[in-house]
Amino acid sequence: MSKLYVIGIGPGAYEQMTGKAITAMQNSDTIIGYTVYVDLVKEHFPGKEFMTTPMKKEVDRCVLAFEEAKKGKTVSMICSGDAGVYGMSGLMYEVGEKYPDIELEIIPGVTAATGGAAVLGAPLIHDFCLISLSDLLTPWEKIEARLLGASQADFVIVLYNPSSIKRHDYLQKACDLMMQYKSEDTVCGIVSQIAREGEEYHVMTLKELRDTKVDMFTTVFIGNSQTKELNGKMVTPRGYRNV
Amino acid sequence: MSKLYVIGIGPGAYEQMTGKAITAMQNSDTIIGYTVYVDLVKEHFPGKEFMTTPMKKEVDRCVLAFEEAKKGKTVSMICSGDAGVYGMSGLMYEVGEKYPDIELEIIPGVTAATGGAAVLGAPLIHDFCLISLSDLLTPWEKIEARLLGASQADFVIVLYNPSSIKRHDYLQKACDLMMQYKSEDTVCGIVSQIAREGEEYHVMTLKELRDTKVDMFTTVFIGNSQTKELNGKMVTPRGYRNV
Repeated sequence: MSKLYVIGIGPGAYEQMTGKAITAMQNSDTIIGYTVYVDLVKEHFPGKEFMTTPMKKEVDRCVLAFEEAKKGKTVSMICSGDAGVYGMSGLMYEVGEKYPDIELEIIPGVTAATGGAAVLGAPLIHDFCLISLSDLLTPWEKIEARLLGASQADFVIVLYNPSSIKRHDYLQKACDLMMQYKSEDTVCGIVSQIAREGEEYHVMTLKELRDTKVDMFTTVFIGNSQTKELNGKMVTPRGYRNV
Repeated sequence: MSKLYVIGIGPGAYEQMTGKAITAMQNSDTIIGYTVYVDLVKEHFPGKEFMTTPMKKEVDRCVLAFEEAKKGKTVSMICSGDAGVYGMSGLMYEVGEKYPDIELEIIPGVTAATGGAAVLGAPLIHDFCLISLSDLLTPWEKIEARLLGASQADFVIVLYNPSSIKRHDYLQKACDLMMQYKSEDTVCGIVSQIAREGEEYHVMTLKELRDTKVDMFTTVFIGNSQTKELNGKMVTPRGYRNV
């Protein structure tokens, strides 16, 4: 049976990949991914065949991976962060229904939520949610209901895809919704270029976040009612009782 | 300035640690952690000084780490999964207020949610929440509000600490709450001993999950309204529109 790995390479730097991910790529004949991620790893895997497809061609990329594996090659499909968090592993199972002879193995990685949290301090110590603000495949009403539900229940919230050229005001809309239940003084943080050159973070209030411009390489963190700023870091206590 | 690393070692196996975590431990004089996690890594770091403190002595463990660092040693405090997800990094910042000369560096790892998801298939492809069922430091009413809010907003939900000897019926209570908004046929999954010997997973309905006994080494996944079973794997599509 041919083997097809679906690998989360972590937030960017080679040193943030797991040993398991590195071994799988070393054992592969072909490494496939979105151009930017292939460029991040290329130098570390000399002699491999690399294939890329552009953004928004995700189904084509999956089919390509299965077709290469069908030829008898060992193939790695790589994603940034974790392949299972807004990543390719779901689509790989769906496309894989047509390739019953090819076995998938998912290799987890450090996702932007935990990679970014490590830069900001410790914002995710207690219950949290991930919400993507991209309405490409999800109706905005659904995103809105999740922002409100998560705010009302006092979750720490991590926003993926907080902005794009078409959706430049989505973060502002999201902040207005969250402020229906969260104080405007809630401690928040943003991290851009996690574990890559130019990594940057800022800690601020929810009110300040509302008027902050972020790009698509930024991950946004909104604290719960207990989250505080400690020496410039964003820290959520592990519980609601004195420890 | 003395350096103190707070490291997520991933779900268990050495191969699931990141290169950055391994390098930090190699550069450390002393490695500190809960006994079980120190035993998992010990053989890979010969010549290091290891120190352990038992469960529920988390504050003591943090103080120990800072005191050792204060002596001029490079110290690694290790946690399973990611140190920032129900882990020690928050408490380290809080205890660290008394040690302004010691710099903390948080090194992220693969948390049980993404490690377990990779075993189950692709349950976390879309918006999800993590909720701990432990009411040791959180009032049960708060946990209940989060279970209800997350279910109503159709999040995929991951439960940490789903059970203990004292809390043997908490998973059942949680399922009853979630079934107020989620169908009893919602696709769910459980994974125990992620990336360790004896790793096991099962895919089932929410109704079946309600009557399933799990232990404290199990992570529980409850799908959203779109999650399906595909060839025995738990898969959440990446959106709500046809792709």
